[in-house]
Amino acid sequence: APRPETAAELFAQLRGPQHRRALGRAITLLESTQEEDRFQADALIDLARSAAEHSRSFRLGVSGTPGVGKSTFIESFGLRVLEKGHRLAVLAVDPSSSLSGGSILGDKTRMEALSRHPAAFIRPSPNAGHLGGVGAASRATVLLCEAAGYDYIIVETVGVGQAEWRVHGITDAFLLLAQPAAGDELQGIKRGILELADHIAVNKADALPAAARESARQLRQGLHLAPPRADGWTVEVSTISAHTGQGLEDLLERLDHYAYRMRQAGIFQKRRDQQTVAWLRESCEQRLNAQLLAFLRAKYQSSDGLQRIIDEHSSLSSAVNVILAEFIKTTNLS
Amino acid sequence: APRPETAAELFAQLRGPQHRRALGRAITLLESTQEEDRFQADALIDLARSAAEHSRSFRLGVSGTPGVGKSTFIESFGLRVLEKGHRLAVLAVDPSSSLSGGSILGDKTRMEALSRHPAAFIRPSPNAGHLGGVGAASRATVLLCEAAGYDYIIVETVGVGQAEWRVHGITDAFLLLAQPAAGDELQGIKRGILELADHIAVNKADALPAAARESARQLRQGLHLAPPRADGWTVEVSTISAHTGQGLEDLLERLDHYAYRMRQAGIFQKRRDQQTVAWLRESCEQRLNAQLLAFLRAKYQSSDGLQRIIDEHSSLSSAVNVILAEFIKTTNLS
Repeated sequence: APRPETAAELFAQLRGPQHRRALGRAITLLESTQEEDRFQADALIDLARSAAEHSRSFRLGVSGTPGVGKSTFIESFGLRVLEKGHRLAVLAVDPSSSLSGGSILGDKTRMEALSRHPAAFIRPSPNAGHLGGVGAASRATVLLCEAAGYDYIIVETVGVGQAEWRVHGITDAFLLLAQPAAGDELQGIKRGILELADHIAVNKADALPAAARESARQLRQGLHLAPPRADGWTVEVSTISAHTGQGLEDLLERLDHYAYRMRQAGIFQKRRDQQTVAWLRESCEQRLNAQLLAFLRAKYQSSDGLQRIIDEHSSLSSAVNVILAEFIKTTNLS
Repeated sequence: APRPETAAELFAQLRGPQHRRALGRAITLLESTQEEDRFQADALIDLARSAAEHSRSFRLGVSGTPGVGKSTFIESFGLRVLEKGHRLAVLAVDPSSSLSGGSILGDKTRMEALSRHPAAFIRPSPNAGHLGGVGAASRATVLLCEAAGYDYIIVETVGVGQAEWRVHGITDAFLLLAQPAAGDELQGIKRGILELADHIAVNKADALPAAARESARQLRQGLHLAPPRADGWTVEVSTISAHTGQGLEDLLERLDHYAYRMRQAGIFQKRRDQQTVAWLRESCEQRLNAQLLAFLRAKYQSSDGLQRIIDEHSSLSSAVNVILAEFIKTTNLS
């Protein structure tokens, strides 16, 4: 077997002509659950983190309910991003995203032009790996893509809840795609999600122009109920068609403008710093949980062992206390 | 101020004529983040756990993409459950569920007949509270409802991913509601979710009979690709109308039959035992995380403190190690 690469070697390759293949290997390393890969993965993340301090990338979160046309949008919008000379990476943050190919009917044919483009990199949702948690792996994947020279990062999710928060926590801007649908159908978008959005685009304005306008009107109404934002940004609602391309140029410009404004005000970097602190907090949690699970496996072997603990204690909380006291006593963090 | 109730007093009231108000107070207690409420909540859960050993309740998970008509279904199906003489509790397991009223347009008028019925109890998604995690709070809420005499529990979710797994992990059976839609639109349902289902019902068969039949056909096809289940159960796909009631009696019977079969085979109790082990494991994780967060707050005060740790360490992983070593050293689990 060939000698495995060191983190430094792999990182150097990310910066070289073979960066695409190196990126694939780097992400595989992040997703590894082998304990011996952990140190190499950590070292790689640290290298990517120091490199990221000097990058001027833009990280865009994109979300929308199933059927909103997210894949078509990303393909069509992404090609425009590439036309501007950017190098584009598209990542998915949860296992039910359209990138992951998890749909019943399959979606191998989606984003065909994008996936063939030499300046684009498309990657489905990462496995949690040793980083424990899709969110942590996604943060690291974004940094690796940037290290490999991708400067426009789209992070996609399909969730109708927590996944949006995760995406919001690792991106610079959040774009919400909405359905052209009247009245009750808007229930798919929840208030909390609406408040995350830095821009909202109602898709399918070609096929359903009246419904798209009506949705846009309702969404603007919903936005007016929210208090003005502390950063002074006004969230706009536009109507677009991923299919015909209508409104996509304007959308691209509006997002550029957002990035410009936030950079000027220092909010851009401040938000990234806060995200790094959140990452540290999560990393502590996840490392501790990994230790706990390893302890439970070693000490109680299987579910039978835990079943016995339950039987021995009249109370769940005292079983928890006994287990955790033992864990703390025996833990030697490395 | 009146003397606060003990867990035993509150539990006794759950079994008495004022059980509905007691249940509200009990759930509020679970959701409390006050450290002093934790012991009382734990004691209450233990009382409910021992009572649950002798209950013959049925816990049904219900899921479906937004717009599938979940509220209408639960109202209509729930009234039939009540007609059979059951006492029904409807709970939501995630913050974006239709029960939580989090939709843009509000849904206060949903489930009107159900919410007025004396034998029904409806409760939106619980806050995480000190139990840390909506899943843990939901498990406890199910037990409290059973202690209060509710024997048919519907746990609803709207998620398009992890939430379904959470619901599956706290219920006896899982019902998936599907849209009457052809081809690509089925992408809303992911393969993993399909495999969780013990029954699938395509709704809106009154308004869109042909599309409903076509959806059912496609879903059956999707199911045929999966290997046969170890428990011998055959997942059926039916077409229903929550609006007219078409197919709901059959559905109720089919689910009763499922419960009967699984009880006979001993699978029912085995699954609940496994769920209790999973609960113990989660409780350990969550208690440990709560301790960690309390430690981070006390030791580093604010995000600035953690920012300083990041600045002091070239590597994120060594910052994590330093923090966790300190945590383990100082932790005194109580």
